Amino acid sequence: MNIEITEEIKSLIPYKPGKPLSEAQREYGIKDFVKLASNECPIPPSQSILKSIQAAALEIHRYPDPSCYDLRKVAAQYYEAREDKFVFGNGSNELIDLLIRAFCKPGDAILTPKYSFVAYRICAQAFGVRTIESDLKPGFKVDLDAISKLIETSWTCPKLIFIPNPNNPTGTYINKTELDGFLKKWGHREDFLIVFDEAYTEFVRAKDYPHGLASSPYKNVVVLKTMSKVFALAGLRIGAMIADPFIVDIINRIRNPFNVNSLAQAAAIAAFQDSAFLDEIKKLTWNGLDYFSAEFTKMGLEYIPSEANFVLIDTAQDAAVVNEKLLKKGVILRPVSNYGLPKHLRVSVGLESENKKAVQMLKEVL
Amino acid sequence: MNIEITEEIKSLIPYKPGKPLSEAQREYGIKDFVKLASNECPIPPSQSILKSIQAAALEIHRYPDPSCYDLRKVAAQYYEAREDKFVFGNGSNELIDLLIRAFCKPGDAILTPKYSFVAYRICAQAFGVRTIESDLKPGFKVDLDAISKLIETSWTCPKLIFIPNPNNPTGTYINKTELDGFLKKWGHREDFLIVFDEAYTEFVRAKDYPHGLASSPYKNVVVLKTMSKVFALAGLRIGAMIADPFIVDIINRIRNPFNVNSLAQAAAIAAFQDSAFLDEIKKLTWNGLDYFSAEFTKMGLEYIPSEANFVLIDTAQDAAVVNEKLLKKGVILRPVSNYGLPKHLRVSVGLESENKKAVQMLKEVL
Repeated sequence: MNIEITEEIKSLIPYKPGKPLSEAQREYGIKDFVKLASNECPIPPSQSILKSIQAAALEIHRYPDPSCYDLRKVAAQYYEAREDKFVFGNGSNELIDLLIRAFCKPGDAILTPKYSFVAYRICAQAFGVRTIESDLKPGFKVDLDAISKLIETSWTCPKLIFIPNPNNPTGTYINKTELDGFLKKWGHREDFLIVFDEAYTEFVRAKDYPHGLASSPYKNVVVLKTMSKVFALAGLRIGAMIADPFIVDIINRIRNPFNVNSLAQAAAIAAFQDSAFLDEIKKLTWNGLDYFSAEFTKMGLEYIPSEANFVLIDTAQDAAVVNEKLLKKGVILRPVSNYGLPKHLRVSVGLESENKKAVQMLKEVL
Repeated sequence: MNIEITEEIKSLIPYKPGKPLSEAQREYGIKDFVKLASNECPIPPSQSILKSIQAAALEIHRYPDPSCYDLRKVAAQYYEAREDKFVFGNGSNELIDLLIRAFCKPGDAILTPKYSFVAYRICAQAFGVRTIESDLKPGFKVDLDAISKLIETSWTCPKLIFIPNPNNPTGTYINKTELDGFLKKWGHREDFLIVFDEAYTEFVRAKDYPHGLASSPYKNVVVLKTMSKVFALAGLRIGAMIADPFIVDIINRIRNPFNVNSLAQAAAIAAFQDSAFLDEIKKLTWNGLDYFSAEFTKMGLEYIPSEANFVLIDTAQDAAVVNEKLLKKGVILRPVSNYGLPKHLRVSVGLESENKKAVQMLKEVL
């Protein structure tokens, strides 16, 4: 075919998700894989969430509520933000896409730290939008001063700045003092948006983490939330954007009206209200993180201290080779060479038994 | 805020879905509405489909299969097309969006018949893409010769031609002879795609309807399917695109990797295999269509004979006024003034009792 397609789409390398279990099973002929590749919650949602799905399933011959009326009320309470600041998406991935579509045109730029979530770059490229990367501080930490310098000196100011906090795949975070200074400097600008991707906020234990951005007074601050991690709803696809109503209105204009399915809406409402389940997942995650830290230290394996539900380890060799060996032993971890880190592997926290198997197999192959 | 937004997005009038039941209940204080506004299936999916959702729900802490591996196999069998011709979407609406994103740039044009599904125009506008409309033949029928003339004479050839068959909101269809002639003329062009939206194919009774486009040998033919109608899965959001692998590859590059949720994938697999349920829905729909035709004829109400699961009626007065009266009586139909048809209302086929109530209330208010 000779139909015209942009060079950006032609040269785009699509997002490579963690190897799906079914695919690994087909490829390696192994049935019992331990999958710690996608920062998923290791257990299914609670009974109350499952029951809400079952009840809502009886109405799936109807289109979903395009306004997410009931969900909005519950989410607004949970995140302590005004109802008119919410838009929901088919995962927060769709919201990243919509933000770029709405506020960037081909040739514009987004800005994001080095080694941050790769979806920003991929979505940008698909729209012919450039990505400017800011350098990190030692310890793989996001350097807000470096971002400030880029805003000041870049030949064109970015339209969107994507800052994941904590960051994926490194697990590092920006503290309250750093963030307050940054927002004092840039929070009043009306020509670009600062998008904080808070996919992993619930797992943070650091006392100086800046919670509460959802109710930020700064009009150019956008917060992304996902239900795919602590809420255990990755398979149902639901994320939220919390932003100034002006931005919400723009996104509502261009999103598909039925972008959030009914079962996701019902499950999310139940999940927000099930604090016992959330507490269980957090505890399980923290235990796993502590176990990994202790084991990796004993093994002399370098890793980055993490405030999320995963740990990035430095294998000090070609991680693709290590990964292949692990797959043959029934363990799926996540290579991050597409982030420019060819020696690192990311390990999500799983069940206690899964964490143990991952550590054991890492010992065998390293 | 003074962040830059395109004029097209600023002036965009978003898609107005059929009034959701919950919204109507809140607004009118009526509990028992009959909703025949969104061409939905009037009954929930079968037990086998519901069971597949329940089983898949136990795995929703995991991301969905990004390749829809199992679903692709079943869909390929159902539609009698090669597996590598499929991409699935978060409803076919997302696929319309992705086609425009991939193959049009701002200033380009899409072509679609007058009074066809409004989503094509809205998606196009959001991307700064113009819409060229072809005139109809008498009886609200799509005129392929008019489309041919526009392709030949337009100052710029469209990149995408969207042809719903049967058409929504009119219910008319293009027959095999007409279509064969059109494809003989244009099916070899490589500079534009012809997208047939077959959302309502399963309801067609006309003997001369052109089934089987999914296995068309023409490389520029794209077929869209939805699971929101006869398959009763509107709330779960799933549609399919069947096209040349070259086009499939392009769409796979730009779509979000997890665009189709796991429960939609599981439910769709079950639905494709439940022919008894599909037969039940078709029968129910055909009975409803015949009932509407008979009643509207008796009432002297003009309507367009339909091959879909809805009927477009001409109220011969301001349909907004009629609609408001019907809402107060607990009946939700669909005004189509946004299609340029201010006197028409679209009535979806519902349960026998719902159809009767709609007819009764129409008699009262007209």
